[in-house]
Amino acid sequence: MTIPFSFELQACQDRARAGVFHTPHGDVLTPVFAPVGTQATVKAVTPTQLQELGASLILSNTYHLYLRPGDELVSDMGGLHLFMNWTGPILTDSGGFQVFSLADTRTIDDDGVTFKSHIDGSMHRFTPEKSIAVQENLGADIIMAFDECAPPTDRAYNERALARTHAWAERCFRVKARTDQALFGIVQGGIFLDLRKNSAEYIASLGFPGHAIGGLSVGETKAEMHAALDIVDLTLPNDKPRYLMGVGTPEDIINCVLRGVDMFDCVLPTRLARHHAALTRTGRLNLINATYTHDIHPIDEGCFCYTCQHFSRAYIRHLIMAKEMLSATLLSIHNIYTLIHLTDDLRQVILDNKLDGFVSNFFEEKARVANTDQSKTI
Amino acid sequence: MTIPFSFELQACQDRARAGVFHTPHGDVLTPVFAPVGTQATVKAVTPTQLQELGASLILSNTYHLYLRPGDELVSDMGGLHLFMNWTGPILTDSGGFQVFSLADTRTIDDDGVTFKSHIDGSMHRFTPEKSIAVQENLGADIIMAFDECAPPTDRAYNERALARTHAWAERCFRVKARTDQALFGIVQGGIFLDLRKNSAEYIASLGFPGHAIGGLSVGETKAEMHAALDIVDLTLPNDKPRYLMGVGTPEDIINCVLRGVDMFDCVLPTRLARHHAALTRTGRLNLINATYTHDIHPIDEGCFCYTCQHFSRAYIRHLIMAKEMLSATLLSIHNIYTLIHLTDDLRQVILDNKLDGFVSNFFEEKARVANTDQSKTI
Repeated sequence: MTIPFSFELQACQDRARAGVFHTPHGDVLTPVFAPVGTQATVKAVTPTQLQELGASLILSNTYHLYLRPGDELVSDMGGLHLFMNWTGPILTDSGGFQVFSLADTRTIDDDGVTFKSHIDGSMHRFTPEKSIAVQENLGADIIMAFDECAPPTDRAYNERALARTHAWAERCFRVKARTDQALFGIVQGGIFLDLRKNSAEYIASLGFPGHAIGGLSVGETKAEMHAALDIVDLTLPNDKPRYLMGVGTPEDIINCVLRGVDMFDCVLPTRLARHHAALTRTGRLNLINATYTHDIHPIDEGCFCYTCQHFSRAYIRHLIMAKEMLSATLLSIHNIYTLIHLTDDLRQVILDNKLDGFVSNFFEEKARVANTDQSKTI
Repeated sequence: MTIPFSFELQACQDRARAGVFHTPHGDVLTPVFAPVGTQATVKAVTPTQLQELGASLILSNTYHLYLRPGDELVSDMGGLHLFMNWTGPILTDSGGFQVFSLADTRTIDDDGVTFKSHIDGSMHRFTPEKSIAVQENLGADIIMAFDECAPPTDRAYNERALARTHAWAERCFRVKARTDQALFGIVQGGIFLDLRKNSAEYIASLGFPGHAIGGLSVGETKAEMHAALDIVDLTLPNDKPRYLMGVGTPEDIINCVLRGVDMFDCVLPTRLARHHAALTRTGRLNLINATYTHDIHPIDEGCFCYTCQHFSRAYIRHLIMAKEMLSATLLSIHNIYTLIHLTDDLRQVILDNKLDGFVSNFFEEKARVANTDQSKTI
């Protein structure tokens, strides 16, 4: 019998880590960026395109799939992997973040949350037990404890929310039944370092196979985010993967890898694509700008993605002006590729003990481009 | 020196033909169905996906590309093949059909047509010479003479329009300069068999390397369309390819192959896809129907397209309900594949002298399904 989940730390450079997380649907090499497929599809790209651009892990959202098409339907269809035809590892969130941030109305008590569907206004209730049941129906490889994401700078709110998050983490840990899913506990605590330390200690004490860090990149400053990560990094055990939820940009990913984070997810690449913007390591291009009308160059000369290997900025701008769906597909492919290959490169330089030079080059090049080419920022 | 264009008739069964049209960007094996990429993209699919599903020839629209991004820009970018990254053969229409049917206002005279852009209301003028100049800038392999598409049942209108179409065909023939493009003349004449015969004779006399048949499938009955094709088939020379513009459905394609047609194009497969409908040889499925909510089967059990090999009806219905772009991509792939593989099969049974059995099986199976499975029709 094999142990379905295990994490190997392969190399560290200062606090940055390169590792591998084994799952029943394949290995996740870390650091890793997971594109987001909220409704069981990464918007505008096929699973084959995702695979070809190098994606290993993808994320899907429990709140959305619970409401539509329903987790029981997904289960009847053989689970999320078969339903959406993604043969690699999948991670689902707990639904907590969406329930707290998206729902029109919601009532929270110590047992759970009652909320209104954004689709049809119907009322629903999530408890820690319900979140796990839904995630077991969906069948992702990595699932999340149900937590409360509080406004990051409200101390009293964070204290109350943290008590709940900890109690709910324990309930999730107890109720989880499937052995082919790894349940991650979530560290909360806003920008308050004592709360973060307390949360990391408590969550770590429960014995999860991995840890998520929630409630960051939600409005606090970069300095506050980094300070919170610093204390969490010191507190969490080294032998488990660390997943920073909802991050991010190329520079955030680098800064957080430097603070010990292994896993990332973010809607940024696909959302920017639908708003006509291309991500590069040195900035963003909004391809709707008239300056690209006759531009025969690819988005990024140094990029090996399908889009940059085959299409000009002028063509993508034409697709945008003509309201053609292909623009979202081509930009999504490029943007996801950019973040995935950034984490691939970070992994390689950590393994090669060359992280410092890579990071200083990255920020120097970004500053140089920002100074010389204003057209690259939107 | 090689001759860039030539047509070989490889086999005939009754009036149905299997052949090969050699172009500078590759061979077109006929009968062939060309998907439509109006604005230099077949909607919702990448060139790679098109290639993988078996497309050889694609069509793009001169009117749309002239207005946006402009034929000169396309020329500056190296032509349509490089601009949209389609390495196979491309066909452009003359712009005539759109100018007559889509433009808000247009004024026609014997020299050409003045029309208003549907994009910004600006005024433009197409003449036969201008249409050829635009198509030479676009750079497709197969280009079309500028013609007037008249309402099919108005005799007096068709007589006037035909005189113009013939005069314009001669002007197009004279002005064409590029030797790496094949200019097709277009037979018009509405439903009037004497006009069709006269038109086929006149157009054939000019010595084009191929002939298009326009002004059909625009509101006349099937019997009228078939009668017009019958007379054109008898009149046009056998040694040139015949292209029926804007057709069609599986049954229309079969009925027209039986009447000597070699080439087809139609927006049907991609337009249906954006309206949630799947084409099969036996009917259509509208995947938005609740009956498919739990349907674990592919659209078509016997289909080998990417969509049918990897996704269930339930998943595609979920994508439609969730307004995810991927539904249009997956349905477009399936629908285009269906028509392309129908023409591939027709070609094979003509080569094998087994067309009769194939055609009777097709219509028997279609009738059987229509009688037993009402859910398959929309």
